[in-house]
Amino acid sequence: MLNPLLVPELRDYLRTNDVEGIREFCRFCHQASIAEFISPLSPEEIWKILSLADQEIRPEIFVHLDPEVQMVVTAVIPRQELASLITDLPPDDRVDLIKRMPEDRREMLMRLLAQAEREDIRRLSSYQEGTAGAVMTSDYAALPPDLTVAEAIQKLRLEAPDKETIYYAYVVDANRRLLGFVSLKDLILALSHETVSDVMHRDAIYCRVNDDQEDAARIIQKYDLLALPVVNEQGQLVGIITHDDAMDIITQEQTEDIEKLMAIGGAHLAGAYLRTSVWSHFKNRAVWIVGLAALGLVSGIIIHQYEATLTQMLILALYMPMVADTGGNTGSQSATVVVRALALREVNLRDTLRVLWKEFRIAILLALVLGVLSWAKVMFLSQGAEIPGDHSLEGIAVCIAIALSLQVVSSALVGTGLPLLATLFKLDPAVVASPVLTTVVDITGLLIYFNTANWVLGL
Amino acid sequence: MLNPLLVPELRDYLRTNDVEGIREFCRFCHQASIAEFISPLSPEEIWKILSLADQEIRPEIFVHLDPEVQMVVTAVIPRQELASLITDLPPDDRVDLIKRMPEDRREMLMRLLAQAEREDIRRLSSYQEGTAGAVMTSDYAALPPDLTVAEAIQKLRLEAPDKETIYYAYVVDANRRLLGFVSLKDLILALSHETVSDVMHRDAIYCRVNDDQEDAARIIQKYDLLALPVVNEQGQLVGIITHDDAMDIITQEQTEDIEKLMAIGGAHLAGAYLRTSVWSHFKNRAVWIVGLAALGLVSGIIIHQYEATLTQMLILALYMPMVADTGGNTGSQSATVVVRALALREVNLRDTLRVLWKEFRIAILLALVLGVLSWAKVMFLSQGAEIPGDHSLEGIAVCIAIALSLQVVSSALVGTGLPLLATLFKLDPAVVASPVLTTVVDITGLLIYFNTANWVLGL
Repeated sequence: MLNPLLVPELRDYLRTNDVEGIREFCRFCHQASIAEFISPLSPEEIWKILSLADQEIRPEIFVHLDPEVQMVVTAVIPRQELASLITDLPPDDRVDLIKRMPEDRREMLMRLLAQAEREDIRRLSSYQEGTAGAVMTSDYAALPPDLTVAEAIQKLRLEAPDKETIYYAYVVDANRRLLGFVSLKDLILALSHETVSDVMHRDAIYCRVNDDQEDAARIIQKYDLLALPVVNEQGQLVGIITHDDAMDIITQEQTEDIEKLMAIGGAHLAGAYLRTSVWSHFKNRAVWIVGLAALGLVSGIIIHQYEATLTQMLILALYMPMVADTGGNTGSQSATVVVRALALREVNLRDTLRVLWKEFRIAILLALVLGVLSWAKVMFLSQGAEIPGDHSLEGIAVCIAIALSLQVVSSALVGTGLPLLATLFKLDPAVVASPVLTTVVDITGLLIYFNTANWVLGL
Repeated sequence: MLNPLLVPELRDYLRTNDVEGIREFCRFCHQASIAEFISPLSPEEIWKILSLADQEIRPEIFVHLDPEVQMVVTAVIPRQELASLITDLPPDDRVDLIKRMPEDRREMLMRLLAQAEREDIRRLSSYQEGTAGAVMTSDYAALPPDLTVAEAIQKLRLEAPDKETIYYAYVVDANRRLLGFVSLKDLILALSHETVSDVMHRDAIYCRVNDDQEDAARIIQKYDLLALPVVNEQGQLVGIITHDDAMDIITQEQTEDIEKLMAIGGAHLAGAYLRTSVWSHFKNRAVWIVGLAALGLVSGIIIHQYEATLTQMLILALYMPMVADTGGNTGSQSATVVVRALALREVNLRDTLRVLWKEFRIAILLALVLGVLSWAKVMFLSQGAEIPGDHSLEGIAVCIAIALSLQVVSSALVGTGLPLLATLFKLDPAVVASPVLTTVVDITGLLIYFNTANWVLGL
């Protein structure tokens, strides 16, 4: 479906300055494909192609470019033409672009825009990042309730070119309070003399401007919506979130969750693995890795406290890594399952006790299996080991197995509890999973290990 | 927006057998909400409510129930009514339900269905799980190219109740080969005497029946589509995948990726954390955890091989966990980033060398920082330690720092290489990340550690 042969062709058009060829190319390909093809070109070449594309598709191509490419391209576009391109962008993409610009360039641009666009940008950029208000668009179709179906279709027809979608139209009163919605399908199926209020759905599903963007996206997913209306504190319609933006929000939040699970910080630029510099990849990871190394100092101190015990019984030192690893693995599993269940809204804080009880029972089963396995492992690997004093290999194997089983259960509870605790303190549960958790249960695991040895072997 | 007060009200209606109340409830709420409210009820109660709901919304409520709930409810529905419910279901949901039924129940049901539905089910169920064919629906709107715009709108109007969407209609020739598509918006904006072929888009984006379902979903996401047409080997249109199904595919694939990253096997039932039994949670995790414990045997054997070295110099045993953990953390980060970049189609196998080179450079930076930190840590923690023979603490600290730095670089390369290797062998890259990777780099880490000690300290 995508023809890779078109890219060299495009370069040819540029070299020979074939204006008609470029125009034809822009008409023939999907805007998302054009954006993909032209991304590797220089900013000047990208602008040349954009300026030759038909006026209606120019903003469509532009919004499909990656944010960083958008920024470098805007730097080479002449002022007046940039102002006109920005006026034509969908309001949500426009405000995202303007927010990323340096202060002076933003001020300069704002002066070139018309009053209406300026106010729209100010309003949309006033919502906090991560809320429904910050991702909504103001280009929705609205209808008064007393229009006839025929008039409503005619109104949507006239407005269609400027709206993100005309498949859902929102019915509002004189104060722009949301009364309901009609789909274009409803209108097409209705009799032309019926009124909008006769055919509209009064139970419109909506969200509020300050709701979390992921909650809004999950509502769109749950109810299979094409768009979700967003209302302010007064119940007035202020924007909509469309299904394609919801899909992007879900993908973005999932990438963030996975990266947090693996302790990778920083903002992830969409589609940018290879284009992100080594240095910024490094910075995103180093913060966490260095933090974990610092936390690892605690494990180091604990190990040193028991240096005498280890000197006396080297066999205990040999199985330290096994206990730490097993705890890390089972704890990470619990944390992952809980983080995911929280993200998909399968469980919430009120389920804390039920989740802990369930993970506790799963951990008991895992602890039994792993306890027996670790006992067998010690008996097999250390069969010829020197055992000091009046201890026996069997006794030491039992001690290690008990410590490992306790570690499995405690890691599972820590792995379950930390994400829930993070949620309670309004933090993202994903940040306390995996590497962070592994480092935490290393500490608890060593304490369990040495105390069990003290207790069982009387060291 | 969702009124939790409705649930007790609904139980009241059921107890007092208030048929009108239940009908009103089903008309008032969104089908997804009704499904959520009635899920905790008994199968008989669920069927009672379904049977009272209006005929058009009954299948809509049913498809929003979780798959397991669907199965237990179908068991209590009388045969003829079950056949009629199944006939009314959207084709993709219908085939999913029938595929999950036990053989005898499936056979019985198939006999009760009309010829057309039987053939549709046979056709849809013939595609392999995970392909576009297995998730598409056959309820799409198709138009011949020679219809006028007015005729086309009239046709869509008549067919609207039976189609998943009428916002996109696909233009096919007499052999059902895909010629292009028109949106309802295009038709509404066109002049009524123009023909469909005048206004249609000829460059329809499509996928093939055997394409991966995630690839299909990513195309819908990339091009902001409402639906993606699916064609067979002959270029004939056989179905469409809608935007809401694409969103569910993406969420499902993400959950699978995250669970594989954390070594959790088995099929994840959507929305089912609390309802999944302890035993099946245990089974999903135990396979991996036991496998990892078995793989851990290799680390155990290596440690035992160097028992004499460790007896001679206990300080090396004390820092084994640090080297293993650090390798696990940095390796997991690389693997996560690569798995995610592969899933989002940011990189593919052809980029292998570029990805390895990038991760190598990031790892060098991390190795430098962590090497210095681990040197300082050994100098600080072991300041009073007994050092045997003619060795110095400085020398041992340098040795540990070198081993840790080498471990960081090798773990990053293993973490990058394993997912790419898995992709080469058509395996899911996510299965070789995190706990699996941690266990693998434990082994390489111990080998690096003891060999470095041999080489630097001459043990």
